Amino acid sequence: MDLTQTTVAVIGATGAVGLEILDVLAGRGVPADRVRALASARSAGKTCAYGETSLTVAEVSPGAFAGCGVVLLAASAEAARRWAPVALGAGADVVDNSSAFRMDPDTPLVVPEVNADALPPASAGTRLIANPNCSTIIMLMAVTPLYRAFGCRRLVVSTYQAVSGAGAAAMDELTSQTRAVLAGEQAKPEVFGEVCAFNVFSHDSEIDPETGRNLEEEKLIRETKKIWGDGSVQVTGTCMRVPVLRAHTESINITLATPASESEVRGVLADAPGVVVQDDRSANRFPTPLRTSGGDPVLVGRIRPDAGATLDTDGRTDRFDLICCGDQLRKGAALNAVQIAEALEGRSS
Amino acid sequence: MDLTQTTVAVIGATGAVGLEILDVLAGRGVPADRVRALASARSAGKTCAYGETSLTVAEVSPGAFAGCGVVLLAASAEAARRWAPVALGAGADVVDNSSAFRMDPDTPLVVPEVNADALPPASAGTRLIANPNCSTIIMLMAVTPLYRAFGCRRLVVSTYQAVSGAGAAAMDELTSQTRAVLAGEQAKPEVFGEVCAFNVFSHDSEIDPETGRNLEEEKLIRETKKIWGDGSVQVTGTCMRVPVLRAHTESINITLATPASESEVRGVLADAPGVVVQDDRSANRFPTPLRTSGGDPVLVGRIRPDAGATLDTDGRTDRFDLICCGDQLRKGAALNAVQIAEALEGRSS
Repeated sequence: MDLTQTTVAVIGATGAVGLEILDVLAGRGVPADRVRALASARSAGKTCAYGETSLTVAEVSPGAFAGCGVVLLAASAEAARRWAPVALGAGADVVDNSSAFRMDPDTPLVVPEVNADALPPASAGTRLIANPNCSTIIMLMAVTPLYRAFGCRRLVVSTYQAVSGAGAAAMDELTSQTRAVLAGEQAKPEVFGEVCAFNVFSHDSEIDPETGRNLEEEKLIRETKKIWGDGSVQVTGTCMRVPVLRAHTESINITLATPASESEVRGVLADAPGVVVQDDRSANRFPTPLRTSGGDPVLVGRIRPDAGATLDTDGRTDRFDLICCGDQLRKGAALNAVQIAEALEGRSS
Repeated sequence: MDLTQTTVAVIGATGAVGLEILDVLAGRGVPADRVRALASARSAGKTCAYGETSLTVAEVSPGAFAGCGVVLLAASAEAARRWAPVALGAGADVVDNSSAFRMDPDTPLVVPEVNADALPPASAGTRLIANPNCSTIIMLMAVTPLYRAFGCRRLVVSTYQAVSGAGAAAMDELTSQTRAVLAGEQAKPEVFGEVCAFNVFSHDSEIDPETGRNLEEEKLIRETKKIWGDGSVQVTGTCMRVPVLRAHTESINITLATPASESEVRGVLADAPGVVVQDDRSANRFPTPLRTSGGDPVLVGRIRPDAGATLDTDGRTDRFDLICCGDQLRKGAALNAVQIAEALEGRSS
């Protein structure tokens, strides 16, 4: 179940997610000589930190995958459509972090803690697996344990998303704009259409003129149904950006299929892999993006019955509120991709 | 319906809300010689800007209300409990911005656009009116028009609250912490228990250990029921702070009593007094705190059917999502208080 015996290529190694993948691989003890850092010609020759050492970035090319067991794609959807078939043809399994294949019916969309059973066995030949969108991964880590234990009819989600989802340039924009505002200067939006310093704005993805939903909300809805394999769950979401560098926060109202008590809900979440409950009412200490940044687990807190719901005589109700935080670059992208690769290798042995 | 003929006293004139009340009064043409800026002994003698001129702050004392028609209290709940009876006894109407009297069954809690009919006539003697909590005012401006037109069974709200709700010191803390973080230094939380720079955190108000709700959420729930005079509406909320200086954002999922089409919902909001619909899907331009700050109206946008709801054959559904933004210091506090005072004067003539 680890990658230390496999050669792993990372395409888009110099981007925010690519660098994080290298950090996760190094942290898991994959030797540097088993990792190939690949990127476009523009970035070839650059070096990337890899644990105590560094890697020189090579240009991605058809020959770059020879001998690779797994290729991790952390590039655009366009680059993924171009390179995934080439890598598969060269005999590698592929984990793609872009949106290119997520809704393709033949491509499994996987969060290992949620639906590792969707991963095909090695006998299926080389395998292409899509990594879900960050907001979906983080939400599903928090609500899937409840879905399994009590069923779920409905989710109402509001997100507080870090700028890191839009890449390293967006993180630079937040700090440089903030510096400008504090110096009494005008903030100049470039990456985003809105000022991000000291502001909150509706997610910058395109909006369907008919439904009024932006693409980020659409991903949250569609990917949840695909990953759960459940078209009946009602999901609605409002995705917003906040002036946070990394780690997304989500406020979730869940309607269960079977009523549960708060302590039953809490118990299920406390036992969930990859989840840490942080819910100290007396100290007013709950998940925050700063407390989550750089870490692996999704933090869950503010667990309580919906204030409008009625408790039955046993103290059970079907509606709960909670918040969760996850590092968008880590569990929301790089870590999940590496976990998928590990699970694939586990299933191929 | 204006205050130009009345002497108005402002208690807590040097605080964030008090200064904003002076700005609103000056903007509405109340002559400086009809305004008394009052505060504790500590602030007496200071000067406050008042339009083109300035006011010298006097110490609040029993004699300070002689000849006043209206006293606007922008101080602590403790100060309100002390001075409201004195001002009423001196013959003034009182509008209190603190939480002291909000849930008192004998004290009307008023948003003039929502329930001006709750204001007693002048024949009732001197009148004490409570100004609701900022998040409640801003939410009710957006959802009351829908409640009137279609009824409302349920509200699920997540807030993105500016630090200004915790006063001027909190605004200083956000800027000074942000400066420190950008300089590579440690952020030191003082006003809040959590770092506010580049972070998001659960609202800093006290949490009921039994229900798990914080006081801000409890206010949103209780005040909505009181102002609507409707105990049957189901309200649940998750109140969060974001690194924004002023203006609160709220993401609202509303369940109507009678299904409506999106264009009916949109039409009702477009006609609502004090509300401006800003909902440009093609330009991705919606309400933001920066666009709202310093302005009077509550901005509403992202109006769309809940993605999990089913539309009937006429395109109607009972569930909608929307966001709203309001300046917490202005409509969320100072402006609403001045509007109440104007409505009281209107009813006394």
